[in-house]
Amino acid sequence: MVLGGIFGGSSTTTPQYLTGDKTAIDAFIDQFDTFLFDCDGADRRRRIGVLWSGDHKFPGTAETIDMLRSRGKQLVFVTNNSTKSRADYKKKFDGMGISAEEEEVFGSSYSAAIYIARILALPPPKNKVYVLGESGVEQELQSENISYCGGTDPLLRREMMPIDFESVASGELLDDDVGIVLTGLDFHPSYLKIALGMAYLRRGAKFLATNTDSTLPSAGSLFPGAGAISAPLVAASGQTPLALGKPSQAMMDAIEGKFKFDRKRACMVGDRLNTDIQFGIEGDLGGTLCVLTGVSKKEEFLVKDAKVVPSAYVDTLSDLLGESKAKAEAST
Amino acid sequence: MVLGGIFGGSSTTTPQYLTGDKTAIDAFIDQFDTFLFDCDGADRRRRIGVLWSGDHKFPGTAETIDMLRSRGKQLVFVTNNSTKSRADYKKKFDGMGISAEEEEVFGSSYSAAIYIARILALPPPKNKVYVLGESGVEQELQSENISYCGGTDPLLRREMMPIDFESVASGELLDDDVGIVLTGLDFHPSYLKIALGMAYLRRGAKFLATNTDSTLPSAGSLFPGAGAISAPLVAASGQTPLALGKPSQAMMDAIEGKFKFDRKRACMVGDRLNTDIQFGIEGDLGGTLCVLTGVSKKEEFLVKDAKVVPSAYVDTLSDLLGESKAKAEAST
Repeated sequence: MVLGGIFGGSSTTTPQYLTGDKTAIDAFIDQFDTFLFDCDGADRRRRIGVLWSGDHKFPGTAETIDMLRSRGKQLVFVTNNSTKSRADYKKKFDGMGISAEEEEVFGSSYSAAIYIARILALPPPKNKVYVLGESGVEQELQSENISYCGGTDPLLRREMMPIDFESVASGELLDDDVGIVLTGLDFHPSYLKIALGMAYLRRGAKFLATNTDSTLPSAGSLFPGAGAISAPLVAASGQTPLALGKPSQAMMDAIEGKFKFDRKRACMVGDRLNTDIQFGIEGDLGGTLCVLTGVSKKEEFLVKDAKVVPSAYVDTLSDLLGESKAKAEAST
Repeated sequence: MVLGGIFGGSSTTTPQYLTGDKTAIDAFIDQFDTFLFDCDGADRRRRIGVLWSGDHKFPGTAETIDMLRSRGKQLVFVTNNSTKSRADYKKKFDGMGISAEEEEVFGSSYSAAIYIARILALPPPKNKVYVLGESGVEQELQSENISYCGGTDPLLRREMMPIDFESVASGELLDDDVGIVLTGLDFHPSYLKIALGMAYLRRGAKFLATNTDSTLPSAGSLFPGAGAISAPLVAASGQTPLALGKPSQAMMDAIEGKFKFDRKRACMVGDRLNTDIQFGIEGDLGGTLCVLTGVSKKEEFLVKDAKVVPSAYVDTLSDLLGESKAKAEAST
């Protein structure tokens, strides 16, 4: 098989099917110094994802990662999951037996923290963040020494009382230092928390979101995602948040700022066309690789006029090992 | 002053200023057999509204209502507030000393109940309603003998547990009879409640909203309205609810169905151009009257190219009494 030479993300190129073609695989891998990986498959039941799905690791994942390391590749694990910190992810990788360093993980909460601390860089003390989200957001803000309120504060997980309308309106319940409202996936929404977020936005706070994924795949079904948590504030305030997760290029800029890689020698690996692959194409990376163990099906990008087309695709990540499928499956 | 004859809701007509012009007022009132009134001003502090604002009654309100009754007018009190039932409103009118019957009140929850029972009329038992809202919605569903779940059920005001993802996905936590999801203003949102609503929508339930007001005026500020409660479901499901409150004409149809009035001999009285006045114009009523004790200012409809223009306007509702302003104010 003759390689096309340049693995551009252009939607006019026919994507290359790498599974079972050792020569093509080696040439593909050699094109890149850096691989950005989507991680998640939160969905245990349907077992969809790239590296794992829930507690299920796809066969050959650890070996594939080790192979790329042995060939000197820089690896970055990119996730939109805002509820987990990089430290949480390190534990997940360890539990899965996949080699990874905390510093190689880049989540949407960390992306938001980096953006707030290094790019937005509001002058203190008016740079406090009001959080609608879980501890993953809080941990990453702490890691960048950003002060915050809201989040997992149990005092806000309560009923809105009539007096609260007065206290929010008067500003008594507000922290004067808040200059940013940051939403992520929050499993504990309350009217009081939404009302406080709206009050801060009405005072001129910047509106950010770790990501705005509309859905969260879980248990073989779809649940409300981070986009459903920011939605009440969008409706009530008329404002739209800047999203710091895939496919927002604000996240790509932050990743590049931290890892200093050559975009033309980098490849995004993922299972979702409209987040992962689009993220790589819009970021003008040298290539994109779609893994078919996930959400998107090859029929979606092999059709004529497909909107988002990867440079290449494989049935499963471990196909990059170049072993026969039977052998790869037998080894785990 | 010579009257223009027809008080159409057309935006090309210059609205007539009635305050202080007894002849014009009498002629205006004589044009109509039916008056539809907006009621609410939830905002105690800023005292904005038509009949009242919070616990503050505008001077002369009761007398104006009595005057219209003495002239044989049919009165309907129309409100988008979904948290209160007609019975709740009757108590409010009584407390304010304003004469009104429960049957004259038409709220967005009642509008939704009427729509579900008489227009949508899904075949039982698959016509149960899953409610995201407060007791006002439940009471009105009961009044039309519609079965429901969700709503104020304290068992749903709890944390989403990991097992809940499985139970929602498997359908174990779902009621098989639910065919409709109805959202109103809910002061007790929870991830579990939103996840259940999403699951019902994914099963094909109809999506309705009592109203989709983005904000709730209160305590001199703005808080998240019913539109902020439906927003997570809109984001997560990609579906948009049919709204049964102002300015949706589904509400006007329901009002007409119940009260059997002649639209050309009916006038909508309200303080908001983009809800009340638009509701009357789109409903092709004979006239609309804007009361300036509320949200909208006359500058908004007196400018050239104004989008929504009432037939007439008064400074305050009691100006319809035709008394001098000083006298009206002294009388309360």
